[in-house]
Amino acid sequence: MSAAPVKFQARQSVGQVEEGNDLAPKFDDRGLITVVTTDADSGELLMQGYMNTEALGLTIKTGEAHYYSRSREVLWHKGATSGFVQKVRELLVDDDQDCIWLRVDVTGGASCHVGYRSCFYRRVPVGESFDKRQSDGHIDLEWTDREKVFDPEEVYGDAPNPTKL
Amino acid sequence: MSAAPVKFQARQSVGQVEEGNDLAPKFDDRGLITVVTTDADSGELLMQGYMNTEALGLTIKTGEAHYYSRSREVLWHKGATSGFVQKVRELLVDDDQDCIWLRVDVTGGASCHVGYRSCFYRRVPVGESFDKRQSDGHIDLEWTDREKVFDPEEVYGDAPNPTKL
Repeated sequence: MSAAPVKFQARQSVGQVEEGNDLAPKFDDRGLITVVTTDADSGELLMQGYMNTEALGLTIKTGEAHYYSRSREVLWHKGATSGFVQKVRELLVDDDQDCIWLRVDVTGGASCHVGYRSCFYRRVPVGESFDKRQSDGHIDLEWTDREKVFDPEEVYGDAPNPTKL
Repeated sequence: MSAAPVKFQARQSVGQVEEGNDLAPKFDDRGLITVVTTDADSGELLMQGYMNTEALGLTIKTGEAHYYSRSREVLWHKGATSGFVQKVRELLVDDDQDCIWLRVDVTGGASCHVGYRSCFYRRVPVGESFDKRQSDGHIDLEWTDREKVFDPEEVYGDAPNPTKL
């Protein structure tokens, strides 16, 4: 692994940011950038998280996904506890460089702390499907995956649940 | 289209939010929820945006993607200006319900205000690829798409560029 830290460039112009070759990410007022993580093979959305400069630098250097956990307020090497490390096959940045897209291979196949393969296991009916079923405006989520890949209690034990109400 | 507004449920417990059938989305302190939009056929990440309650309700009712534009501070029916409407094939919600995933079909095939098919047209080298090329820590983005689907000047004219430095 290279000893040199990853260098981010200052944001100087819209042309540089949108159509240049500089990596000039925009971290928000909390110092975070939004990250979208998909399965490199299936295209399935696995999770959406955040990185600070340290997490982005480590992800680039190591090729393994690092995030910043807002609930625990720590750098988070994904898979350090669960073993489900995400190997980054491709890291892309969007037009205005305020979002990172990770295309990953997941060891063990799970990305969700609840135990499912993906965090997105429930569907909201839209358009005609909404109309037919929800005449009073109430929505029942439809499950797209009922099979847990692991048992969260075995993997995380007594660690606090990251979900906030 | 149903006359009833879409009803969101109050967030009462972790179990309800993570493993129940209620749609109980978490809007942040700005009143927004993160949205990830992928091409329903290719799995490609097209864009990442935000919705407020109105945008989410309209998306569910109409089956066409509505967002909240942070730069313009308005409800944004995607495609109203450019014609590139996003038809929602599937709308999913994540475990803690603070992120929406839209799987869409895009009329005309473009989602990026710069003119590309996707907002994600540049790659950051990671791991060994970073090591080999960026010994001083400097990063050169690699382009994955050079072909614009439309001319932004023709489509948007004098409208201000949404990219903020």
